[in-house]
Amino acid sequence: MPPPLTIRSRAHDYTVEFHPDLGAALAAVVGGERAVWLVDRRLAALQAPALAAVVPESRLLMVEASEAAKSFEALTPVFLGLLERGLKRDGQLVVVGGGVLQDIGCFVASVLFRGLRWTLVPTTLLAQADSCIGSKSSINIGPYKNQLGTFYPPHRVLLTSTVLATLPPDEIRSGMGEIIKLQLLAGEAGYRELMADLDQFHGELPILEKWVGRSLAVKQPYIETDEFDRGVRNLLNYGHTFGHAYESATHYGIPHGIGVTLGMLTATFLSVRLGLVPATHYTELKAQLAPWHHPFGATLRKAELAQVFEAIRHDKKNTGTSVNCILTRGPGRMERRPVDFERELVPAVTEFIAHELAP
Amino acid sequence: MPPPLTIRSRAHDYTVEFHPDLGAALAAVVGGERAVWLVDRRLAALQAPALAAVVPESRLLMVEASEAAKSFEALTPVFLGLLERGLKRDGQLVVVGGGVLQDIGCFVASVLFRGLRWTLVPTTLLAQADSCIGSKSSINIGPYKNQLGTFYPPHRVLLTSTVLATLPPDEIRSGMGEIIKLQLLAGEAGYRELMADLDQFHGELPILEKWVGRSLAVKQPYIETDEFDRGVRNLLNYGHTFGHAYESATHYGIPHGIGVTLGMLTATFLSVRLGLVPATHYTELKAQLAPWHHPFGATLRKAELAQVFEAIRHDKKNTGTSVNCILTRGPGRMERRPVDFERELVPAVTEFIAHELAP
Repeated sequence: MPPPLTIRSRAHDYTVEFHPDLGAALAAVVGGERAVWLVDRRLAALQAPALAAVVPESRLLMVEASEAAKSFEALTPVFLGLLERGLKRDGQLVVVGGGVLQDIGCFVASVLFRGLRWTLVPTTLLAQADSCIGSKSSINIGPYKNQLGTFYPPHRVLLTSTVLATLPPDEIRSGMGEIIKLQLLAGEAGYRELMADLDQFHGELPILEKWVGRSLAVKQPYIETDEFDRGVRNLLNYGHTFGHAYESATHYGIPHGIGVTLGMLTATFLSVRLGLVPATHYTELKAQLAPWHHPFGATLRKAELAQVFEAIRHDKKNTGTSVNCILTRGPGRMERRPVDFERELVPAVTEFIAHELAP
Repeated sequence: MPPPLTIRSRAHDYTVEFHPDLGAALAAVVGGERAVWLVDRRLAALQAPALAAVVPESRLLMVEASEAAKSFEALTPVFLGLLERGLKRDGQLVVVGGGVLQDIGCFVASVLFRGLRWTLVPTTLLAQADSCIGSKSSINIGPYKNQLGTFYPPHRVLLTSTVLATLPPDEIRSGMGEIIKLQLLAGEAGYRELMADLDQFHGELPILEKWVGRSLAVKQPYIETDEFDRGVRNLLNYGHTFGHAYESATHYGIPHGIGVTLGMLTATFLSVRLGLVPATHYTELKAQLAPWHHPFGATLRKAELAQVFEAIRHDKKNTGTSVNCILTRGPGRMERRPVDFERELVPAVTEFIAHELAP
C-alpha cells in the first residue's frame, strides 16, 4: 500500500491513509461512538456487511448520489437528518461515497456548528485519486451549477482499493482522466510509467492503488502552495475548461473525468495549433487516451457546437474576448494563457470535435 | 469620530471605519458598480434618500429582519436573488442592517463562490458595538437555533452613528447590554467611565459613537487571540448562558442584549453566592443596570422557571452535572467555572428571578 500523506491546510492539517479493505478503513474511524455516518445509498447496498459491522443503524443517514442531491435545497433534510440522529459539536461526520457525497459532506461539515470534525472514506476512483484532497466543495442552487461551496478538508481520509472492484467501467475511465492529467502535470517520467502500466491494465486493484497514491502525491504541492486556487493550483484545471463545456453541452452525458480526458486532448490540439508543442505529442496522446474516453467521443460529436461555445464563454475563467486556458508545451510544462475566442479557440475546437474523434 | 481599527483574522484582515453619516458610509464602498446590496427592508424605508443616491434599484435585494429570515430554508431566495441581480465572483456583497442581516450576509458571503468579498454597514447599536467584528454567523434550521454558521468576517465595516437616531428605545437598551458587558470585561476604569456617561445619557449620538468605538477596542484582542472561540474568547459570553435561556424561555420576548444584561446580573448574583465577589459589587450593578433592562425584568418574572432551566441544561456549554458559566470576581476579573446545576445554579437563579427583579 502507498505510504500515508499529511496534507497542510489553512483550516487544519489532515492525513490520508491506505487500508487493506473497507472493514479495516471503517474500523480506523476514531470516536465512532459520537459519529453520524453519511453514506451513498448504492454503496451501502453493495457493502452492507462491512458497514453493518461498524455503523449502528440509528447513526446512519443514506443519500442518493445524484446531481440533484448536491443542491442547496436538498441539504435541509441532510442537516435535519444528522441533527435528529444526535450529531453534536463534539461528535464527527463520517462520509462514505464518491464525489457527490464528498461535496455534500464537506459543505455540511464546514457550516454545521461553524465547522465540525469529519472523516472521508472516498469510494470512487476519481474521489480517491483526486478530489479527496484539496478542501473544495461545490453545491448547485436553482439553475446555477457549483456556485456555492467551501474550502474545508476532512480531518482524515481513509482509502481502500477494494471498493473500486464494484465500480462500472465508465467510473474507472472517469477517475483515470484525472490520474492521467496529474501524471501529465508531473512530467515525462511519471507520464511514461503510467502509460506503460495502462497498456496492459485489466482492472488490477494494486495498479489502481499505486496510481491513486502517485496522483495524490502530485496534487499535494499544488493545493498546499495555493489552497484557494488563485495561482499555481489553476494548472490542475488542465483539460477542465473544455471538459466542463463538454459535460454541460451533453447535459452531463459525459462523466466528469472523461470530459477532462477529452478536454486535455482539445487543449493539446490547440497547443499544437498555437505552436507551443510538436504535433507528435498530440498524435501520441490521442492514441494513448482513446481507450480512456471511449465511447464518449461519439457522445461529444453529437453535441450542439453552439452549446459547447456558449458554455466556454460562460466559464468563470473568461476575460473580454479571450478565454484563459491551461495549455501545454509537453508533459510537466503546462501554462495558463489567454486564447482569443473567435480567432484561435473556435476554429480549433470545431475541427477537434469534427475530425479528431472519428471512430 | 473614533479612530479606524484593523482587525486580524484567519480569513483576511479587515478594517472598521467611522463615517459622519449614512451617505458618506455608502459612498465609501469601493467597487460599488460590481456590488449587489442586501438591505434591511425597514431601514431601506427609513433611509430611502441616502440609499437611492448610491444603490441602483436593479442591484438591491431587500429582506425582512426577522428570526425566520435567518433560517437555512429562507436562504435559497436570497442566494437566487443575488445571482439574478448579476452578482459575480469578482463582485461584492454589501450588507446594510442589524444582526439578522449580518448573519444572513456573512453566511451567504462565506459560501457563495467559496467566499465572496463583502462589506458590512451595521445599523443597530448591538451590531455596531459588538457583533460587526468577530467573524461569526449563526443560522437556524428547522427547530434548531443557531446550529449552522461560519467564521467569515467582512472585508470592511463602515459605521455611522446617525442611523442609530431612528432606533426604538429597546434596541438602544439591547445594544447597551453588550456595551456594558465589554466595559465590565475591560476593568474598573472603563466600567466607571461608562456608568458616569450613562448616568446622564439622553440619547446623544456622540456618546453612542464613543462607546461603539470603545467597545470594539475591548473586543478586538479577544477575537484576534482566539477567533474560533476555543479559549479566552469564551469570556465574551459573560451573561450569555443565562441571557440565552431568558430569551428562549420568554419565546424571544426579551431582546438579545437585554437578556445579556439580565444574564450578567444573574452571573454576578451567583458569583456573590459562591463567594467570588463582595455583595456590594452586585448591589451597585443591580442599581446601575436597572434602567437598561427595564421593563424586561417583568417579562422574565412571568417566564416558566422549568423552561429557563431546560434551556440552560441544553446549552452547548454543559458537561455532566455542571454548567460552565462565566463568573466574576469584579470588573476585569471574569473567569470560566463549572457550576453544579442542582446544588448551586438552580437555587441562585430561582431566587434571582423571584426576588431580585421586583419593581
